[in-house]
Amino acid sequence: MAYGELDQLAINTIRTLAVDATFKANSGHPGAPMGMAPVSHVLFNKFMKFNPKNPKWVNRDRFVLSNGHGCMLQYALLHLFGYAVSMDDLKSFRQIDSITPGHPESHDTPGIEVTTGPLGQGFSNAVGLAVAQAQTAATFNKPGYELIDNYTYTFFGDGCAMEGVASEAASAAGHLQLGNLIAIYDDNGISIDGDTKCAFTEDVMKRFEAYGWHCEYVKDGDNDLEGIEAAIKKCQAVKDKPSVIKLTTTIGFGSKLQGTGGVHGNPLKEDDMKQVKAKFGFDPEKSFVVPKEVYDLYGKKATEGAALEEEWNKLFEKYGSEHKELHADLARRLTLALPEGWEKKLPTYNVSDPAIASRKLSESVLEAIHDVIPELVSGSADLTGSNNTRWKNAVDFQPPNTGIGEWNGRYMRYGVREHAMAAMMNGMSAYGTLIPAGGTFLNFVSYAAGAVRLSSLAHQRVIYVATHDSIGLGEDGPTHQPIETLAHFRALPNMMVWRPADGNETSAAYYMALTSKQTPSIIALTRQNLPQLEGSTLENGIKGGYVALEDKEAQITLVSTGSEVSICLEAVKFLKDQKNIKARVVSMPCVEVFDAQSKDYKLSVIPDGIPALSVEVMSTLGWEKYSHEQFGLNRFGASGPYKQVYEKFEFTPEGISKRAVATIDFYKDVKPLRSPLNRAFQQLI
Amino acid sequence: MAYGELDQLAINTIRTLAVDATFKANSGHPGAPMGMAPVSHVLFNKFMKFNPKNPKWVNRDRFVLSNGHGCMLQYALLHLFGYAVSMDDLKSFRQIDSITPGHPESHDTPGIEVTTGPLGQGFSNAVGLAVAQAQTAATFNKPGYELIDNYTYTFFGDGCAMEGVASEAASAAGHLQLGNLIAIYDDNGISIDGDTKCAFTEDVMKRFEAYGWHCEYVKDGDNDLEGIEAAIKKCQAVKDKPSVIKLTTTIGFGSKLQGTGGVHGNPLKEDDMKQVKAKFGFDPEKSFVVPKEVYDLYGKKATEGAALEEEWNKLFEKYGSEHKELHADLARRLTLALPEGWEKKLPTYNVSDPAIASRKLSESVLEAIHDVIPELVSGSADLTGSNNTRWKNAVDFQPPNTGIGEWNGRYMRYGVREHAMAAMMNGMSAYGTLIPAGGTFLNFVSYAAGAVRLSSLAHQRVIYVATHDSIGLGEDGPTHQPIETLAHFRALPNMMVWRPADGNETSAAYYMALTSKQTPSIIALTRQNLPQLEGSTLENGIKGGYVALEDKEAQITLVSTGSEVSICLEAVKFLKDQKNIKARVVSMPCVEVFDAQSKDYKLSVIPDGIPALSVEVMSTLGWEKYSHEQFGLNRFGASGPYKQVYEKFEFTPEGISKRAVATIDFYKDVKPLRSPLNRAFQQLI
Repeated sequence: MAYGELDQLAINTIRTLAVDATFKANSGHPGAPMGMAPVSHVLFNKFMKFNPKNPKWVNRDRFVLSNGHGCMLQYALLHLFGYAVSMDDLKSFRQIDSITPGHPESHDTPGIEVTTGPLGQGFSNAVGLAVAQAQTAATFNKPGYELIDNYTYTFFGDGCAMEGVASEAASAAGHLQLGNLIAIYDDNGISIDGDTKCAFTEDVMKRFEAYGWHCEYVKDGDNDLEGIEAAIKKCQAVKDKPSVIKLTTTIGFGSKLQGTGGVHGNPLKEDDMKQVKAKFGFDPEKSFVVPKEVYDLYGKKATEGAALEEEWNKLFEKYGSEHKELHADLARRLTLALPEGWEKKLPTYNVSDPAIASRKLSESVLEAIHDVIPELVSGSADLTGSNNTRWKNAVDFQPPNTGIGEWNGRYMRYGVREHAMAAMMNGMSAYGTLIPAGGTFLNFVSYAAGAVRLSSLAHQRVIYVATHDSIGLGEDGPTHQPIETLAHFRALPNMMVWRPADGNETSAAYYMALTSKQTPSIIALTRQNLPQLEGSTLENGIKGGYVALEDKEAQITLVSTGSEVSICLEAVKFLKDQKNIKARVVSMPCVEVFDAQSKDYKLSVIPDGIPALSVEVMSTLGWEKYSHEQFGLNRFGASGPYKQVYEKFEFTPEGISKRAVATIDFYKDVKPLRSPLNRAFQQLI
Repeated sequence: MAYGELDQLAINTIRTLAVDATFKANSGHPGAPMGMAPVSHVLFNKFMKFNPKNPKWVNRDRFVLSNGHGCMLQYALLHLFGYAVSMDDLKSFRQIDSITPGHPESHDTPGIEVTTGPLGQGFSNAVGLAVAQAQTAATFNKPGYELIDNYTYTFFGDGCAMEGVASEAASAAGHLQLGNLIAIYDDNGISIDGDTKCAFTEDVMKRFEAYGWHCEYVKDGDNDLEGIEAAIKKCQAVKDKPSVIKLTTTIGFGSKLQGTGGVHGNPLKEDDMKQVKAKFGFDPEKSFVVPKEVYDLYGKKATEGAALEEEWNKLFEKYGSEHKELHADLARRLTLALPEGWEKKLPTYNVSDPAIASRKLSESVLEAIHDVIPELVSGSADLTGSNNTRWKNAVDFQPPNTGIGEWNGRYMRYGVREHAMAAMMNGMSAYGTLIPAGGTFLNFVSYAAGAVRLSSLAHQRVIYVATHDSIGLGEDGPTHQPIETLAHFRALPNMMVWRPADGNETSAAYYMALTSKQTPSIIALTRQNLPQLEGSTLENGIKGGYVALEDKEAQITLVSTGSEVSICLEAVKFLKDQKNIKARVVSMPCVEVFDAQSKDYKLSVIPDGIPALSVEVMSTLGWEKYSHEQFGLNRFGASGPYKQVYEKFEFTPEGISKRAVATIDFYKDVKPLRSPLNRAFQQLI
């Protein structure tokens, strides 16, 4: 259809809002909003399906600004279309405690789907959103009920295109034939270092073709609104491939510095701001101006969106009469609550049960619960047989024409793409109908650190199944043996790091991971077998830390996790037999959950009066918070059979006992000897 | 040339050695060595230039096994060609303290160029090795003296091809037109999850073409030795592009399980091992057999390699007579020693000097020393203007035909590719003639965690210039504000994490980073201005921690880093004026270097008798080691002007004082109150 003056006015309104907000904040990125305003207008006003009054409507189209530094574009759009983002919010851009922070944060701002800014993440989240859409559609759609048919759109720039995480995700998306995914590449030729010619001269579209994407090109992204519309339509028509539109735009369109790096990351100067406004027919002396016609135009679109949701709600109600269980299932999933009684399926163990590797115990959990938690989607970054992430009868999520899976499959083959796996899981979680769990070796969760951080910041219920969690993996050696990894993620806010010691603790880890709706988890699991512990129960495990072996006359507390707990229990015997020393043992599968317990409880676990020694076969960093002395491994490991590796580093009953004796001796003169949990003041949280 | 029986015998010897070693270890990956033995034979015996008696000869061809799990291939080759890898070493494959660990480690094994195994790293290291070759050649080669003309060869598999880090590096290599880089893609169609069709169906060669690589294809990598030779020759002839050869091979060639996932990561069963040997004409009952003809064949190649080095040495000597300074420079660089007296160029500051952001102070260091340390190559992942990594007259390392740089340029434009930057820097460092420094925001060093870990494990002198190091970056907000990052890298063995508080400490950080030949550094630098401190000197800084403000009657020690040290100094005044409390301040720019000081010194810095409070605006994890109480930020930050962000979280003289008072109060009854540096036992290192 033809575009006219009103469209141009809307586009220029978006541009001037971005100019004003960055100018007022004296900070931010006007360039991308000014360049991407035309495609945003076409996409949001002509194509996208959304209801600003209910940003959580499940079948809305998803929009992800992967080049999140351009967020004033998105904030302006949210405001203009009537989301709960006010003009005052725009004026508070990049100010403390505003809902318009420097990069978009889904947890804070209505209408923001995922948290972006770290480059490449949003694009990869979009792939995850599209996976979730396809999986959810295949699960719930029935003849006459196309309940789930939304598109996922994402904008990305040169920075995202250069990031490996986006390359991985693009390769995965091509393989998965995600037809409802449409990406728009802002080909403005500028990155922070200036012209992309200094570092980025590849043929991006050819690369996407190699991945199996459908590619379109719009030469004049600044003016050719019809061309943009036609390209999006063509992409919508391609159902068996994701699509990308290369859109050549002028960064900072309208500025005197347009087309240069000068307009990328700095507000316009005052005179430039004024000339932009004059050029676009706005009063150069006024700021934050929205012509009534623009509010009206976008308000009309918002009203249509509300009506679409209303229609959908009716369809969903009718669906309930024909497909009662599915209706209830979808309705429940959208609340993020799990099915009633699911936890009864969690395996529990007795001390007489055999020793089992915790990666196998994790597999037993997945085997036991996958039927009762249909939103659980497992997967692995090409380590399925090692991570034990696949239940026996799992169906792969694959395009059916591959012959190796179905759209409603619940097992993801992420390939050797840890970072994209994590970012895709963030998108899958953000979709609202799935709980993703994905496996790799603990050491390679670090490859995904950029996305794992955003799981935490964006409050995504994502589960990292991290096997081969220590030097206990043995022969693969130091390149694969985590030392710093648990410390890294324990230092990350809003992340539960679990390292279960046996079967009951493994079930406890899953219980907490699944029921914590706003917190991701890393579950660190062994390759080697672990005995079932006497003091271990599901109830104890979900406290994060508990007394695994009590002795009221103990002279020391041994605080340990995972595979070292049972060695500590052996050390207690050794201490008693060889040294006539009494010791007690605390198992601490998750320090973050333990931290949240009452002070009384915590002091009953690690009490005043006797010293505590932590035992964990990796970096001791952070264990000072829970113990007076620390036994760990502040060096790289070794390649060899795992029992020999443990012996080399003295993680044996004898090695622990030697340090326990030294600890008791060292602290015997200190009065009062307080538990390390006693602190002088509270931390900010 | 024609290949005959002897060639086949050599190939099958490599295969059977890999079969025997994995069988004996009952662990490891026979599949890739069996599949890649033919190309290895052609490459090593026909093309590569190396002297097994001197694996450090600078102009040797570099070989990188990016699919490092196939390392028995490389160990077998090293043994057969006469490197210091004995048959007993092969028999100790994957055993404790052997030089044949589960993945290749350059620090342990003669002839291993870089540490690989974590997928995608080796390929990216190879790009860095090729960068270093091109830069070193352009710096030292003169008419008649082609001193540096080696090739870099790398093998990579599907796993590497899927990893984002390798995608980033491949894109960079294409841009950089690295003609001496030849990569061989083991297209065996198998990854751990089985057929790559389940996750990886892109057109890999088309992707490499999109990056600007020259591509060759050898269909029968198992048998077509002539085809392999011809393809490598063609690649060598292409001088303005890196080259990749897609080589279709059969994983586990010869095994009953050949071509399946069953032979990827598990030793052959005994009967299969025997049938393989029989098939290849070896005695099924004997193990670790090397026919004399094979030793002879490869010994001849080794002798030729020694002669080549001898010739080169003569050429280099002659070069010395014509190009004395360059000769001395290259000879010096190869010892890893810096030029005499370079440290006199380091800027020093007085307390009267103005407040300057430490990222600017870092720029001043680079400006001051780049002339005297010609091996220093700086760069940035597309944040040059923010990281301040480029000295004024720097020339970019670029192909001259781009018109924007030279082959002997010393400034790298890595693009928005943090992970590849880190992995390339590892390769550049490993080459032996360069010291790479690369910039990004501290928060995005996490994107590179996989490669940063290998900087440490492989003992590479790599410098990460990590600016925007805290909530002090302000408006960009939580997505960009590090919280967990310093804890993460402080937990990494053999890594120096620096967070200088002013100009002298910034110079100290560079002093230690440049003079520590076996240890990488992360230098965390502020966006905001920092005053010059009174107690700060270069000499103090290089101790890692020192008393910045002494008071013999102090009731508390404030231990701090970077931007918070000056706030602690203000807090001392506040405490004195408002609370009549005396306090002293310790600046601790690098805990790892402080740890290495004498116990006496350390106890003079953080003494017994008074409590210590740490102050750092990020995760407190680990500070318990140096303080009794910790003031930090165990939550995500906030988007806003940085001073307001500091105030929000109480990182002000008042906020610090409040916690100091609580700390003094809390510890007043504890006797003896020991310094946290007093420990019951030594950690394993």
